[in-house]
Amino acid sequence: MLQQLFNPSVQHTLDLIGIFVFAISGALLAVRKNFDVFGIAVLAEVTALGGGLFRDLVIGAVPPAAFTDLGYFLTPLVAALLVFFLHPQVERIQTGVNVFDAAGLGLFCVSGTTKAYEYGLGLTASAALGLATAVGGGVLRDVLANEVPSLLRWDRDLYAVPAMVGAALVVLCIRYDALTPLTSALAAATAFALRLLAMRFHWRAPRAWNRRSSATEAEGRGERREEGREDGRAHKATA
Amino acid sequence: MLQQLFNPSVQHTLDLIGIFVFAISGALLAVRKNFDVFGIAVLAEVTALGGGLFRDLVIGAVPPAAFTDLGYFLTPLVAALLVFFLHPQVERIQTGVNVFDAAGLGLFCVSGTTKAYEYGLGLTASAALGLATAVGGGVLRDVLANEVPSLLRWDRDLYAVPAMVGAALVVLCIRYDALTPLTSALAAATAFALRLLAMRFHWRAPRAWNRRSSATEAEGRGERREEGREDGRAHKATA
Amino acid sequence: MLQQLFNPSVQHTLDLIGIFVFAISGALLAVRKNFDVFGIAVLAEVTALGGGLFRDLVIGAVPPAAFTDLGYFLTPLVAALLVFFLHPQVERIQTGVNVFDAAGLGLFCVSGTTKAYEYGLGLTASAALGLATAVGGGVLRDVLANEVPSLLRWDRDLYAVPAMVGAALVVLCIRYDALTPLTSALAAATAFALRLLAMRFHWRAPRAWNRRSSATEAEGRGERREEGREDGRAHKATA
Repeated sequence: MLQQLFNPSVQHTLDLIGIFVFAISGALLAVRKNFDVFGIAVLAEVTALGGGLFRDLVIGAVPPAAFTDLGYFLTPLVAALLVFFLHPQVERIQTGVNVFDAAGLGLFCVSGTTKAYEYGLGLTASAALGLATAVGGGVLRDVLANEVPSLLRWDRDLYAVPAMVGAALVVLCIRYDALTPLTSALAAATAFALRLLAMRFHWRAPRAWNRRSSATEAEGRGERREEGREDGRAHKATA
Repeated sequence: MLQQLFNPSVQHTLDLIGIFVFAISGALLAVRKNFDVFGIAVLAEVTALGGGLFRDLVIGAVPPAAFTDLGYFLTPLVAALLVFFLHPQVERIQTGVNVFDAAGLGLFCVSGTTKAYEYGLGLTASAALGLATAVGGGVLRDVLANEVPSLLRWDRDLYAVPAMVGAALVVLCIRYDALTPLTSALAAATAFALRLLAMRFHWRAPRAWNRRSSATEAEGRGERREEGREDGRAHKATA
Repeated sequence: MLQQLFNPSVQHTLDLIGIFVFAISGALLAVRKNFDVFGIAVLAEVTALGGGLFRDLVIGAVPPAAFTDLGYFLTPLVAALLVFFLHPQVERIQTGVNVFDAAGLGLFCVSGTTKAYEYGLGLTASAALGLATAVGGGVLRDVLANEVPSLLRWDRDLYAVPAMVGAALVVLCIRYDALTPLTSALAAATAFALRLLAMRFHWRAPRAWNRRSSATEAEGRGERREEGREDGRAHKATA
């Protein structure tokens, strides 16, 4: 049967790793936004568990794993504490964090797609929900931090595409009855590798054709204004 | 019984039309916010399916139609592609889009109210959920775009009221056992017409009494600042 | 059994009081953000019912109480009307509102934790969901108003901690089989008192260690910019 892609304990460990690295990214944003220790913990939890929570609500798997597995709940708190005390060091190893985050992306798009199919969704819907599982937490993180979700911004390296490819590979395997721990691992690895390449070579997605430059630059200002420090300069500039 | 307001295939077509026009409005905002092609697709999906998704989660209709009906999922992608390639033309026919959006508003408040009642909600709750179905997608769209939901802003033409009237008419029909395809169509048409009139004559809702002007103008600035282009001017102004 | 902490009608009254005061806080923010009368009503509903709605979706209690109990739905509308006509007076008694809000916080963290346990969640998960029930509405309120949730901001008096303590006391009572109307009331009263003390003495939570001052002040600007009036000044300053 599908559910157990890997030896259960192996899969659980992989899940916890993905949760942990997503939590780190949430906690780091909380520090940049100058939140207090509870804000850091909340943003860590939301970033790490939001995607899976949405998936479980959609497929009717209630109560969601986020509220039934104590490890899922406690792991983000550990990440939040680490960032609270060590965030300068953690930021210095930002690259490392990004690599782990890419790993989490790969793992979540595969496990999310598989679980969605397990619960009776069609192939396309399963892939879409797997994608939502992988990127949902990050979107919630940015919304709570009152920023434009980096998932949507043109000036960010490709993030959704690697997860889409991973989810698509999983449904292809299901379609052709070839979903095994091995093929699942390959799908996750492919998403992981694509995300790494996107970061390495700054792959970006195109914006709509024929944008009027006016809109572009104005919006450019708009985006600058969203980050506190940049804004400091902006204000000096206008003074 | 209630569910089939119209011949099923007719109703499905009406749903797809509503989804399509809502998706257009989401995709257009994504272009204005300078999102990339995936951001455009995501905002189109969220705007078109968000309201119905919320409704289905509330009434426990899982998995939600958004994930079981392939047409519901693919239609927004088509809208996103259209906007991606043709958005200047699409914006030029903005009026046409607004008319379709008004049609979607009328259709969704009726079908949302009916489905909520089907699933056992009371009359008032059904109307409330029908309203949420009609306006929910637009609110999610604005939240993801990091803007104040236009639904809530005083400087926008009435949007919620037409949907409220449509939903209220449906529950009245249910209450008096008069819900037929015809009366349902009339309720949708009423909401549609009211929205058109609100846009034509710029009907607005009152703000709280005795606002201190200070708050008003300051907030006014605040709202101006939310749109990139306007903001460009604002900065020049202060320079 | 757990559910009935108090005589049902007593508990229902307490719920309505909590809903009412949360709705007041939502409506007041809507007035400050210059929303129209419908925006005020929407923000009142979301603030008052959002936390419980999230809890009910997570535990699978659908349709949620917010859509089955007419009183839950109508109470926020009454609060919205009051604020619409009397908001200067309501703001003058802001302290009173804060006291009621603290009471709502205490009541909701207790009833939320109890209901979560009733539906089979573990003790930790029940406490977490009780906390989410108590603070969720306020977070949704701030997100819809396009502001950084005050729950997360370091420059706000402690809000989550009192609710955490209340929820923790409830699970301790459950763990040691001591959950009675009396102990439940004591837990709610403790959360209530802690919140009052936090407001009275401006207790704040620490931010991450070793923040670089640059980030701090820049973010400080960022936060100032979020409030319309302040911003007015800011602009004059730069002119």
